Amino acid sequence: MANLPRVLVVGGGFGGFTAAKQMRNFPVDLTVVDQNNHHLFQPLLYQVATAGLAPSNIAMPIRTLSHHQNRMEVLMAEVIGVDTKKKQVLTATRQLPYDYLVLATGAHYNYFGHEEWKTVAPGLKSLQDAIRIRKNILSAFEKAEVELDEGARKAYLTFVIVGGGPTGVELAGSIAELSHRSLKDEYRHIDPVSTRILLVEAGPRILSGFSESLSRSAHRELEKLGVEVKTGSPVEKIDVSGVVVSGNRIEAKTVIWAAGVRGSKAGVWLQAPMDRTGKVEVLPDLSVPGHPEIFVIGDTALVNQDGQPLPGVAPVAMQQGRYVARVIRSRIAGVNNVPAFHYFDKGNLATVGRAFAIVEFRKIKASGWIAWMIWLLVHIYYLIGFRNRVLVLIEWAWAYLTFKRGARIIPSNV
Amino acid sequence: MANLPRVLVVGGGFGGFTAAKQMRNFPVDLTVVDQNNHHLFQPLLYQVATAGLAPSNIAMPIRTLSHHQNRMEVLMAEVIGVDTKKKQVLTATRQLPYDYLVLATGAHYNYFGHEEWKTVAPGLKSLQDAIRIRKNILSAFEKAEVELDEGARKAYLTFVIVGGGPTGVELAGSIAELSHRSLKDEYRHIDPVSTRILLVEAGPRILSGFSESLSRSAHRELEKLGVEVKTGSPVEKIDVSGVVVSGNRIEAKTVIWAAGVRGSKAGVWLQAPMDRTGKVEVLPDLSVPGHPEIFVIGDTALVNQDGQPLPGVAPVAMQQGRYVARVIRSRIAGVNNVPAFHYFDKGNLATVGRAFAIVEFRKIKASGWIAWMIWLLVHIYYLIGFRNRVLVLIEWAWAYLTFKRGARIIPSNV
Repeated sequence: MANLPRVLVVGGGFGGFTAAKQMRNFPVDLTVVDQNNHHLFQPLLYQVATAGLAPSNIAMPIRTLSHHQNRMEVLMAEVIGVDTKKKQVLTATRQLPYDYLVLATGAHYNYFGHEEWKTVAPGLKSLQDAIRIRKNILSAFEKAEVELDEGARKAYLTFVIVGGGPTGVELAGSIAELSHRSLKDEYRHIDPVSTRILLVEAGPRILSGFSESLSRSAHRELEKLGVEVKTGSPVEKIDVSGVVVSGNRIEAKTVIWAAGVRGSKAGVWLQAPMDRTGKVEVLPDLSVPGHPEIFVIGDTALVNQDGQPLPGVAPVAMQQGRYVARVIRSRIAGVNNVPAFHYFDKGNLATVGRAFAIVEFRKIKASGWIAWMIWLLVHIYYLIGFRNRVLVLIEWAWAYLTFKRGARIIPSNV
Repeated sequence: MANLPRVLVVGGGFGGFTAAKQMRNFPVDLTVVDQNNHHLFQPLLYQVATAGLAPSNIAMPIRTLSHHQNRMEVLMAEVIGVDTKKKQVLTATRQLPYDYLVLATGAHYNYFGHEEWKTVAPGLKSLQDAIRIRKNILSAFEKAEVELDEGARKAYLTFVIVGGGPTGVELAGSIAELSHRSLKDEYRHIDPVSTRILLVEAGPRILSGFSESLSRSAHRELEKLGVEVKTGSPVEKIDVSGVVVSGNRIEAKTVIWAAGVRGSKAGVWLQAPMDRTGKVEVLPDLSVPGHPEIFVIGDTALVNQDGQPLPGVAPVAMQQGRYVARVIRSRIAGVNNVPAFHYFDKGNLATVGRAFAIVEFRKIKASGWIAWMIWLLVHIYYLIGFRNRVLVLIEWAWAYLTFKRGARIIPSNV
């Protein structure tokens, strides 16, 4: 086993996990490093945040990849830098040498210079974020129930979601159903049906990645669920008791951030060329200029195709993970004949509430129940692990039939 | 609805939940207060702590009891005292008046005067405890994998469980299976099979609530799973790096406390007669001496039967909850003819690992696979909610067939 090329993958998200899965049978010494022990199915994170699914339904240990693989190891450690000269990745406790490096370190929410908003308006990127947001949402109803002051009670029953992309839309729809349906008839001093949910978007329309007609029908569907959609409304201020939107103050105890992302620190570690959101401008083979042995993939890479940057979605990261595995294999074999990366667009999906979605694949557009069935099948198909698929299908069937949610648990503070 | 008798239940565990469920159709103004929003199926808490089940599999919102019940309310608030003169329960924000009061406030772990052990050797009473212990256990393997010092690595791979009652035995058996089976072949620098698991009991045998022959067979089964069982071994010291047991120091990074409980603060609030563990010495109708309108049930009540105190188990609390509901109904009707509480013993169950349990019902004793099937059926039967039953059965079938665990997630610290 000695002297095999050392391949190091940083990050166990869609990009890194896919790359590692491809390479685990290659004749390489493969290491995956992540600060968490789990791969996360991010597209369903909003369901954990809104009490529909349990964290373990959408997460699996990265380590399971290395089961019975003696040329592969998985380390749980936080990467703090890269020494490109010595070809080492730095963690708090040790240096990890590499011959090929794949950085798949994802993205963070971008607060556009207002870092102080982060504590009052958390974003939704990790399981911990989702658990905290679920706690905030469920606690708001409990606090409203025991609150005697009318104004404070209204503020507890007002939820503001900032950002009208897929995550914001999915959160708004799901909170609307939670409050207007699941929690109905269980309180005595408040009526959850009166909950106010605002989706605030700075741009002219929500879901701007879709065509205008689909964006409009999602907008209408949200309004049918009782969500107030405010487009062309930049957020000017966020504090512990509310927000200011287009000059109007709205008292709200729960604000969730779902607007814009920026790249991870990978670009800083490498001192590589970046765009203004910190994404690394990679070459057509996804390697970093001047470092043919280092690849950056997923949300932290900037790849232009047909004059447009590729979106930060799971299919892009997965295709890049597979591509990079191919490139590394060909380099090791000394052939180096893989053409430039090209994203094959399988289409775009977003869901609004329990039985409505929009689908766009080239010229094909669909919305409503049929689109939702497609959304459901795609998500079940890509969810990793047979067990998770069965459990999530049961949770969804149960929620669909009863309007009840399986994970309405507020973990107490010790 | 005015002027109905006000019945206040404090605590949504087995005792309080059962009492409230019985009374929600009574002609009373019913309120349930709990500091958590959920009822917890405590007998399976050890499975959450050892990554077998998700928190939401064994918890359900107490509030679901009040669905469509307009004479009932559920409040999430921490009770801090009782004013027996004004007949009010005190919370941080308001006073709750009552005509009848049921205190079902449970138990805490008893560190026998060593409160400083609490932070290094957490007990297992709440979901939060279980999540923390799961994090400690799973992190220990991850830290061992990246640890370079041989001694520290061994300490990470040593687990000490203090207390040989059912919880301690179930935890030890489950950690043994997790490390010796589920995690096998997934690490490269450590071998989880070499993990040392010690079950330490001060008394002469484990599971002293069972007859000696069953206790012996559980002891043998634990040893078969690779657990070192040390009876007659009081713990003398616990600190961050290990324990001292019978004069011997054992280096261990993970210590779990499962020895002895004490009553909640209910006795202090009432200034009622208590035993030395803080349990309230109630009258034969479970009311408090001098206060026929106040009842104490479950783990925080001391009830003697046949010269022995009743054990702090779910069936006792549930039967007491049903009994108290009957007493309150008869008092309201002005009849007052309910005989003294009598616990009907349905037998005793404990499980060791994945396919072994012991069962004792009067003269009937069983151990092994058949007893485990009984254990499984009883736990599925009492698990509240059809959805949870189905999901838990799937998790168990999957774990049984594959040795894999569904909830191996370490939530990150933000």
